[in-house]
Amino acid sequence: MPDRTAYFHLKEKFRKISIFGEASAMLHWDMAVMMPEGGASRRSEQMALMSVMSHHMVTDPELSDLLDQAEASDYSQLGVWDQANLREMRRQWVHANAVPSDLVGALSKACSTCEMIWRHARNDGDFVAVMPSLQTVLDLSIEKAQAKAAKLQTGIYDALLDQYEPDERAVQIQSIFDDYAAFLPDFLQTVLARQKQNGHAKKPQGPFAIPAQEKLIHYFADCVGFDLTKGRLDKSAHPFSTGYSGDSRITVRYDKDDFTSSLMAVLHECGHARYEQGLPENFAYQPVGQSRGMTLHESQSLLLEMQACRSQEFIYFASTAIQAAFPEIAGLEADNLVKLYRHVEPSFIRVDADEVTYPAHIIVRFRLEKALIEGDLLLKDLPQAWEEAMMELLGICPPHNGMGCMQDIHWYDGAWGYFPTYSLGAMSAAQLFEAALGDDPSILTEIARGNFAPLFAWTGTHIHAKGSLLSTRQLMEEVTGSPLDPNCFKAHLKQRYL
Amino acid sequence: MPDRTAYFHLKEKFRKISIFGEASAMLHWDMAVMMPEGGASRRSEQMALMSVMSHHMVTDPELSDLLDQAEASDYSQLGVWDQANLREMRRQWVHANAVPSDLVGALSKACSTCEMIWRHARNDGDFVAVMPSLQTVLDLSIEKAQAKAAKLQTGIYDALLDQYEPDERAVQIQSIFDDYAAFLPDFLQTVLARQKQNGHAKKPQGPFAIPAQEKLIHYFADCVGFDLTKGRLDKSAHPFSTGYSGDSRITVRYDKDDFTSSLMAVLHECGHARYEQGLPENFAYQPVGQSRGMTLHESQSLLLEMQACRSQEFIYFASTAIQAAFPEIAGLEADNLVKLYRHVEPSFIRVDADEVTYPAHIIVRFRLEKALIEGDLLLKDLPQAWEEAMMELLGICPPHNGMGCMQDIHWYDGAWGYFPTYSLGAMSAAQLFEAALGDDPSILTEIARGNFAPLFAWTGTHIHAKGSLLSTRQLMEEVTGSPLDPNCFKAHLKQRYL
Repeated sequence: MPDRTAYFHLKEKFRKISIFGEASAMLHWDMAVMMPEGGASRRSEQMALMSVMSHHMVTDPELSDLLDQAEASDYSQLGVWDQANLREMRRQWVHANAVPSDLVGALSKACSTCEMIWRHARNDGDFVAVMPSLQTVLDLSIEKAQAKAAKLQTGIYDALLDQYEPDERAVQIQSIFDDYAAFLPDFLQTVLARQKQNGHAKKPQGPFAIPAQEKLIHYFADCVGFDLTKGRLDKSAHPFSTGYSGDSRITVRYDKDDFTSSLMAVLHECGHARYEQGLPENFAYQPVGQSRGMTLHESQSLLLEMQACRSQEFIYFASTAIQAAFPEIAGLEADNLVKLYRHVEPSFIRVDADEVTYPAHIIVRFRLEKALIEGDLLLKDLPQAWEEAMMELLGICPPHNGMGCMQDIHWYDGAWGYFPTYSLGAMSAAQLFEAALGDDPSILTEIARGNFAPLFAWTGTHIHAKGSLLSTRQLMEEVTGSPLDPNCFKAHLKQRYL
Repeated sequence: MPDRTAYFHLKEKFRKISIFGEASAMLHWDMAVMMPEGGASRRSEQMALMSVMSHHMVTDPELSDLLDQAEASDYSQLGVWDQANLREMRRQWVHANAVPSDLVGALSKACSTCEMIWRHARNDGDFVAVMPSLQTVLDLSIEKAQAKAAKLQTGIYDALLDQYEPDERAVQIQSIFDDYAAFLPDFLQTVLARQKQNGHAKKPQGPFAIPAQEKLIHYFADCVGFDLTKGRLDKSAHPFSTGYSGDSRITVRYDKDDFTSSLMAVLHECGHARYEQGLPENFAYQPVGQSRGMTLHESQSLLLEMQACRSQEFIYFASTAIQAAFPEIAGLEADNLVKLYRHVEPSFIRVDADEVTYPAHIIVRFRLEKALIEGDLLLKDLPQAWEEAMMELLGICPPHNGMGCMQDIHWYDGAWGYFPTYSLGAMSAAQLFEAALGDDPSILTEIARGNFAPLFAWTGTHIHAKGSLLSTRQLMEEVTGSPLDPNCFKAHLKQRYL
């Protein structure tokens, strides 16, 4: 077949890899949202097998030969998108080929097992119960990190980080996080003092009926363009989003005593979903057509949740629907809702944290997971190290491990190196939103009317449609004029809270 | 590895094939129950890819060599279960290896496409709209049938039948069905006359609130041992069941004007689920550990629905809960419910048919699909042929194709050769239930108290735990003393309806 180039064949192969990945993602969704308890062990077999099969697809020697051939041929024949696609193919190849297939299967099973034990042990904060299986996950994760580090020529923690945020390195993060850790104590005290001075938000007293919350959530999802013929909105223990264009699936959870969290959660997850839906259709199923990395992904959820929807403009708009949903409840006046949605207070649970203290939660996790991966901290010492780190950064100490080192699924599910992207995303969101408003000031005035079209026109063009064409750094530079600058985030906080 | 025999390796390989099949089944479930419309095209890519990958796993040359080696070695070293397992491995191998992988992928995609068009065209009965894509499905199905027939040395229709009911042949079915077609007209007239004489059931007037129906359905599912920690019960356009031990998923649909159908549907699907849950755990993931075929599968749903739960004993028991669910509705007295659940009337829709006329629906489909597959009928002539066949067997003619040849998903989804197993299952159920009552008369007296334990003890031991150890015929002989005898079914009908 003389007219079929190596690159053409590669595209066919990566198309299959991507389709297979989408099938796996749907089974993951089912596991978290639909699967009965009794299905856990067989599902864990399915996920492990599919991990290994997916790994085989990328480690196929034929694919390796094709990559070599495509890279050796004249690049300039390819357009910029195809060049970037080839680069991203190689990136996926390097990551996959660094790790032996046995390790992939063993890690998948270890994670499923550990996650199941964690789900039961978490509420009691019983770290001892989960420690042996977590040790297995950690050991296998270190083994994976070492294998990848050797190929990527990075530090071992960097090798894990690189899976979620390509080209990001711990040394950069450390500098950004140390800066924030230094900034936080004084700033936090000032914010708390100002908050006290202005009067705290009145906390509306529920119960807030779940059906009314559901209706409200659907209304706001619709506002931000989440289309239920192309997605689902369900309940799960932890809100998350998954899927792809045409089938975006988001979840929220409802608290009958507090409607505020489900509302912001749905907006957050819609931000993720809109990113996936806006990826370039021309390169659907190709590496370059996929989201850039978890930092930009989180920037899209936080741009919507934290930047756009905690704006005074949006909360004023939203207050009408919120009041209509709970007509008998006091304290839903727009001004009080603004205070409520901007309440700052050091707390134990990351997912409930305000945007000022949130980075402290991430810094704790980043420092501890890096130490665990690099062998500078033993798992048995994790609970105490957690308490010390929380004391240092936020001045509070969790009453038990369920509110401490056992609150998040990530480590138990094998996602080491993932946490930093939350705060990198928050910081990027501030910088991107500033750029968006600079380009189109109508974005905020339209949001005040519940119209998100100008915002999504901007993010769609400048971020979503770019897929993985550029590196995160290049994209930030192209769109905002500079790489990630944590001062934008600090400026945003100062403006909003002082 | 001297201690690892070919058979041991085969078990490992078939274990993976089975796990992969379970993952695919879950994605099928999601497609029917959860997936938004926008997900259809990507899911169709996923399913096609997974069909081809699954096919590759069974057509792997290494697997072929191992099968040859295992069969050439001393069989007597293996226990009976392992011998049967090897036999079933070969059966799967023959079916898969007969068909080229391109055809597997093309058929999977053609079915997904056709099914989507059918979903939209069905309500209008627009056969012309779906005919081109159905023609593609039919052509590819014939191609598959020819390929399999050559390897199985059977007729081409038999080759399709064999996929769903191993060793069953059209000639046997034809004889059973011709016999029933000859029996039906007089019997039906007698039943209708008797029914008129005894007074028709009063039809309770709804609406029957869906939440009350749901509660009732859960109550009866619980009665027959369906455990929601090991399964799910959802809504879908057509009731079906899927899954495996630990994660059985059944669906029902609710009609607010008629509570009777959802109630029997849930019992029917629970019968399927109990079969899957009772398969031998020792051979989970192995061919011999799987359900024997669709005839026995349907026999288990119909044994529960038609034999056990349309018994006077069960309906009397159930009437208390039904009356409690709809306290303000008249006509729910036990005697009237018995009449209602045994009402016989020729009608257009198979899934709503009573057990007397149901086989006529199947005979129509069997005759027509066989003619289509064998080239004796053209697709363009199907609507008219359908009308003629319905007139001949039931004396009624559907007002449009949506109530005729477009009512069932099967042909549009590529399941040619499947229909006969419904009636073979109904006939087997009558014979098995007779044997069960012969072995343990307490089965029916306990059902009268809502206790299904003795029934499931019997089916569990004699049918479920057997997996695919025996052929369907052997199992019927072992359990009832004879192969399938359609006279048992006719005797059951005479006893119940005359």
